[in-house]
Amino acid sequence: MLDWEHIFATRSSRMKASEIRELLKLLEQPDIISFAGGIPDPALFPAQEFQAAYAEIFSSSQVNAALQYSVSEGYKPLRDWIVADVAKIGIECSADNVFITSGSQQALDYLGKLFLSPNDTALVTWPTYLGALSAFNAYEPNYDQLSLNGNRTPEGYRDTAAKAGGQVKFAYLSADFSNPTGETIGQEGREKLLALADEMDIAILEDAAYQHLRFNGQAISPILALDIARKGGIENTRTIYSGSFSKTLAPGLRVGFVIAAMPVIRKLVLMKQAADLHSSTINQIAIEHVASRGFDAQVAKIKKVYSGRRDAMLAALEKYMPKNTSWTKPEGGMFVWVTLPEGMDGAELLAKSLATERVAFVPGKAFYADGSNANSLRISFSCANDQMIDEGIKRLGRLISNSVAGDNETLPII
Amino acid sequence: MLDWEHIFATRSSRMKASEIRELLKLLEQPDIISFAGGIPDPALFPAQEFQAAYAEIFSSSQVNAALQYSVSEGYKPLRDWIVADVAKIGIECSADNVFITSGSQQALDYLGKLFLSPNDTALVTWPTYLGALSAFNAYEPNYDQLSLNGNRTPEGYRDTAAKAGGQVKFAYLSADFSNPTGETIGQEGREKLLALADEMDIAILEDAAYQHLRFNGQAISPILALDIARKGGIENTRTIYSGSFSKTLAPGLRVGFVIAAMPVIRKLVLMKQAADLHSSTINQIAIEHVASRGFDAQVAKIKKVYSGRRDAMLAALEKYMPKNTSWTKPEGGMFVWVTLPEGMDGAELLAKSLATERVAFVPGKAFYADGSNANSLRISFSCANDQMIDEGIKRLGRLISNSVAGDNETLPII
Repeated sequence: MLDWEHIFATRSSRMKASEIRELLKLLEQPDIISFAGGIPDPALFPAQEFQAAYAEIFSSSQVNAALQYSVSEGYKPLRDWIVADVAKIGIECSADNVFITSGSQQALDYLGKLFLSPNDTALVTWPTYLGALSAFNAYEPNYDQLSLNGNRTPEGYRDTAAKAGGQVKFAYLSADFSNPTGETIGQEGREKLLALADEMDIAILEDAAYQHLRFNGQAISPILALDIARKGGIENTRTIYSGSFSKTLAPGLRVGFVIAAMPVIRKLVLMKQAADLHSSTINQIAIEHVASRGFDAQVAKIKKVYSGRRDAMLAALEKYMPKNTSWTKPEGGMFVWVTLPEGMDGAELLAKSLATERVAFVPGKAFYADGSNANSLRISFSCANDQMIDEGIKRLGRLISNSVAGDNETLPII
Repeated sequence: MLDWEHIFATRSSRMKASEIRELLKLLEQPDIISFAGGIPDPALFPAQEFQAAYAEIFSSSQVNAALQYSVSEGYKPLRDWIVADVAKIGIECSADNVFITSGSQQALDYLGKLFLSPNDTALVTWPTYLGALSAFNAYEPNYDQLSLNGNRTPEGYRDTAAKAGGQVKFAYLSADFSNPTGETIGQEGREKLLALADEMDIAILEDAAYQHLRFNGQAISPILALDIARKGGIENTRTIYSGSFSKTLAPGLRVGFVIAAMPVIRKLVLMKQAADLHSSTINQIAIEHVASRGFDAQVAKIKKVYSGRRDAMLAALEKYMPKNTSWTKPEGGMFVWVTLPEGMDGAELLAKSLATERVAFVPGKAFYADGSNANSLRISFSCANDQMIDEGIKRLGRLISNSVAGDNETLPII
């Protein structure tokens, strides 16, 4: 066999198997209660609506266009629908500001590719979405901790980035019900971030994958909307907003989008033309059909279910978790973030849990760019019913209590 | 508006609008006879078969899985189908050697990403597929001319690459009915390339997008098949084969694939997981349905039509082209490559042609990594009927004859 390593590019050394991926394989074991995946419940997919959409495409004059190559910008009626949808949350833009991607994961890859030269710095929250770190890693950046509580200065960020051999290019974050913590950044935090980005002359990457999934509490304007309000129009903004249909309609079609000022969109279009030409034509048309006929009703339906599961999860945590643990109280999304007693390791806990309690979750360390904060874990409530949530958290609480009590046997990592 | 240029990565300066893209826009003008696009004729799409495939997915128990996230490797039954199909042309492999991409354009992007560090060298034919240059450009390589006629030595390639600041990583080529020339590399040339790659310890990227479209003549084993025969098994090979369903079934679903030794596939899977998670689940299932039920019949159907158009194109060229032009005689694919009289510029000819004759084609210069050989052009016969071919080539021949005769007026480039 060849020694491929010396032919591969340097960036390939940062492409490693992720914990999330290995964990997704566990979902297929039927006796596991899994809070690991951040995936939507397939029982909630608008399958009939998609069935009707594909059937309509094939019985219309659109069929040949649906099966043919199409433009890299994306299907114009879908971009028009997105323009109307985001206008409701204060994002005033035109279809020229909207770019269709193959899921919002592709937006993260493309934005990493657009901004990051090797050794540049990306500011990310500690913790952050693991998939964002994976996407950016291909472009060999350094990471620094994005902090909105005033303990970092623009000069400090700049100095750290310069020492690492590059410059700060952007701050990436999920403002609403973030993966992995479920937390939301308030308007004050968003305004602070905009001021910081203006001062540092960097971009803001606003990952809005969960934005539609607010169960309660007051909606907060997207960072891009606040940026537009400050600057008088989207062409003067520095915020790049990425959205997805994966959490609301269905992920299997791979349709997401980016909204930004036109100089950014033009580069992304050229990048896509070179990288995969365009996202699936037929799927973009199907998404537009389903979205334009009942997006709000579909969102209302899934919010009702996920909201109930969030309530069940918070109730179970309250009931079963030992005293020296804490957790977030998300107002939407799919995740709760649990902080374990100091010194406890989420990865070790997972190994024990799979061996004895058969409950799956994601160890928190995976979401830290520096691998710190081992004493945390992400639990998702999106795919579990109330009974599974109660039983799973009961077992998990028991395991944590026993571990706190000094159970130091070493079990093999599975 | 912000000055984005200083925030963008250095690679973004190589992302520019391509001539092909601008030309595709011309296709929408109804009075143009276009030989420009290399796209399949939509009248040949197996639309009824796709209609049945999507309908079957929605009326089966597979529907939730089809709309859900899926594995980055690709849909296993589709990979199994590909394994069986390529076995017929001497590529013995398992599903573990097959990786599904969003069209074969994505394979080129991923392979550039996997192999090319900035200033590394990619060997490409002069001319080569423009989309390959676009895909690789994002990784800031240099190009050197791949020559199989013995006028270059491994040392020569290595020295040139070292002077450019990197090393030679791969040779990229299309072996069958290449885009843009329509030419096929014989078995001797393929064996020479394998010997060169072994000696230089580089990868071979075999772009087989048109491989199924042979109209006449003896089929030649793919480079990967020859490599497997030399090395005794795919795990010892250095050839990476990329294929596509875009030319045979339909491009709008964005489904292609890569076949290679497992160390390469494993890296590509990790890359895809980070870049867009996976290709559309539902489309992969639909492609598998249609391919497994009638791929060979579909290929036979389109070959018959394209073969007739190739014949009409060659007959028209013979009839109308002035003496001092020459062209390739492809045994398959979608393209003929025309060499114009020395000193004539294909781009200038296109400007004149659009202004007066209303015939579109792609100037040859676009396919040269160094922008040389302006006196050439690519014409596609895939989407034109016999009458359009005769009329279009008649006009083109007239224009070239007149240009040869000394028409040096400068017309604006459109």
